[in-house]
Amino acid sequence: MAADLAEDGEFDVTIADHSRDALARAARRGGRVHLLESDLRDPQVLARTVSGYGLVLGALPSSIGFEALRVLIQAGRPYCDISFMPQDALELDEAARARGSTAVVDCGVAPGLSNMLAGAAARRLRPCERIEIFVGGIPRRPEWPFFYKAGFSPADVVEEYVRPARLVEAGRVVVRDALSDVEPVEFPGVGPLEAFNTDGLRTLISTLDVPSMSEKTVRYRGHAELMRVFRETGLFRMEPVLVEGVAVRPRDLTAALLFPRWMYHEGEEDLTVLRVVGYGRLDGAPSRLVWEMVDGGDPSTATSSMARTTALPAVAVARLLASGRLEGPGVIPPERIGEDPELLREVLEYLSARAIRIEERRERAAT
Amino acid sequence: MAADLAEDGEFDVTIADHSRDALARAARRGGRVHLLESDLRDPQVLARTVSGYGLVLGALPSSIGFEALRVLIQAGRPYCDISFMPQDALELDEAARARGSTAVVDCGVAPGLSNMLAGAAARRLRPCERIEIFVGGIPRRPEWPFFYKAGFSPADVVEEYVRPARLVEAGRVVVRDALSDVEPVEFPGVGPLEAFNTDGLRTLISTLDVPSMSEKTVRYRGHAELMRVFRETGLFRMEPVLVEGVAVRPRDLTAALLFPRWMYHEGEEDLTVLRVVGYGRLDGAPSRLVWEMVDGGDPSTATSSMARTTALPAVAVARLLASGRLEGPGVIPPERIGEDPELLREVLEYLSARAIRIEERRERAAT
Repeated sequence: MAADLAEDGEFDVTIADHSRDALARAARRGGRVHLLESDLRDPQVLARTVSGYGLVLGALPSSIGFEALRVLIQAGRPYCDISFMPQDALELDEAARARGSTAVVDCGVAPGLSNMLAGAAARRLRPCERIEIFVGGIPRRPEWPFFYKAGFSPADVVEEYVRPARLVEAGRVVVRDALSDVEPVEFPGVGPLEAFNTDGLRTLISTLDVPSMSEKTVRYRGHAELMRVFRETGLFRMEPVLVEGVAVRPRDLTAALLFPRWMYHEGEEDLTVLRVVGYGRLDGAPSRLVWEMVDGGDPSTATSSMARTTALPAVAVARLLASGRLEGPGVIPPERIGEDPELLREVLEYLSARAIRIEERRERAAT
Repeated sequence: MAADLAEDGEFDVTIADHSRDALARAARRGGRVHLLESDLRDPQVLARTVSGYGLVLGALPSSIGFEALRVLIQAGRPYCDISFMPQDALELDEAARARGSTAVVDCGVAPGLSNMLAGAAARRLRPCERIEIFVGGIPRRPEWPFFYKAGFSPADVVEEYVRPARLVEAGRVVVRDALSDVEPVEFPGVGPLEAFNTDGLRTLISTLDVPSMSEKTVRYRGHAELMRVFRETGLFRMEPVLVEGVAVRPRDLTAALLFPRWMYHEGEEDLTVLRVVGYGRLDGAPSRLVWEMVDGGDPSTATSSMARTTALPAVAVARLLASGRLEGPGVIPPERIGEDPELLREVLEYLSARAIRIEERRERAAT
């Protein structure tokens, strides 16, 4: 994010982090950026830190994302966030409106780009009857036994595999087990994949008036069954088990054994796949709108696809905020951007200029 | 074993065990038996305990099987053992001959019955070019996710899944990973099964002059891949891993989570499948000799198939020892019984009278 924003000299960019090492790594990525060592877990430190800036991007751990959003709203600084917070950011919408603050949340690839495209589907299809989102970050070359590496926190991946998934069916929210309804899926040049329920709809559940919506996570085929067995065996449990007289949380041991195997090694390539399908009518005819992305990393900057596709939508939105083309006040989920054809076009053009290409198809179909 | 030996009044039977509960349970199985509380882990106690008896059957944990065999040989009592000891019992053959003692070891279903049939194949085929053994104890009704329950110590099952497997190929011993060379197999009325390498040949490696031999464990299809993943993940490791500052042996935690799922519940039916195939020539023609068993439990006595098929070959052999039809001295592996048509016939008839039926087929075949 910082490197992209600093690139064209339009912005004066400062990176704040509590880790000096992380700051040094960020600086090595290039671009003229200032570094600020600052423990942002402390709301008062965070409030002081952001007070001198005209625009703030948040890439904080999910555990402190909601509190940081609250601080930013109070600080009255335009904010664009990619924290995968477990709370509902829209609960702070009223406070943001009262304070005259603007915060765009969930601004990564999914949630993020997926929400924008879902918003576009909901707007263009009359009516929009169903939205399906398929998304996953996977290694380019899958390896036995997991066919998977974690492009972000592996603990959050496990959390995704245990947290019940909320779907919308016949206009109502229904809850399914994570890893359920496994189905084969295909993406061009990647194969064979599968998709399964995870709790990814988030704000879409309340913001879009579409009677049927699902988000599924994509992996290479076979991964879901293994994770289902791990979960069933109890290996993801948080409740301690007595082992030779010592209380052990199974998930901690599983993490110790599993996560090193889920780490990308230096230079290993990853892929991010995303498909959003809207079902409904276009000019009265049963139709499908399909957006599809298969993104690899950028070898020239040693940046993973997961990093690029998560960071750059946020930068695109930050640029919209900075230019005043996106205005609040309020807590704005990305689907609102997708509902505005001009804003969406700008985001997609910005991404395309950075080689993140989203194909759009319009298909006649029985719905 | 005790119930069967006590049944016809031919023997005066005493059961010795260090656990009063185990003795009480054994007594409830019926038959007129004496009970003796005795800690057989102590070699001196074991020697004293067996000194008053004319014939001894051993069903001791594998960890003390070899030491017990040594004691029995010194005690000069005919001995028939089903301890799955990791050591090579034949190392004590010389001592047994010197002392004039006779001990038949590995006298269960496999090792045991499988060795007898392998011995028969090696004798009858001229030459015998290859012997394949397939054996497994499985639930009658497989359940997701493991399609398996453990009919004996689950810790020994895991040991089977990690210990390298010794095979004989082109006259030489080769070592393969356990759980390797997974192949589909079929047994009548049971399905779909798979078989994979485990270290089951034991004495056959040195006693039979057959250039190609393998023993594979049989499970419902899909089990081996799961166990390979568990092993690869490190869940069967014995070396401690630091988890939140505490050293934990992964296999201990895995056992705590897995073994309760591998337990048969009260009244649940199991199956034991066994197939021994000898390849070679009969009267000069390329032929196969095939023995096949599919055994269920005995609902009338609530005895599992694994218990019946493990115990009754040992009882058959004990009866041969008691009647003097099987003579030593020495440590005798069961394949020696299979090499004697009369002794094998007696064992198979004895088993058949107890509803353990082994079908024999002779097939013309390209070898």
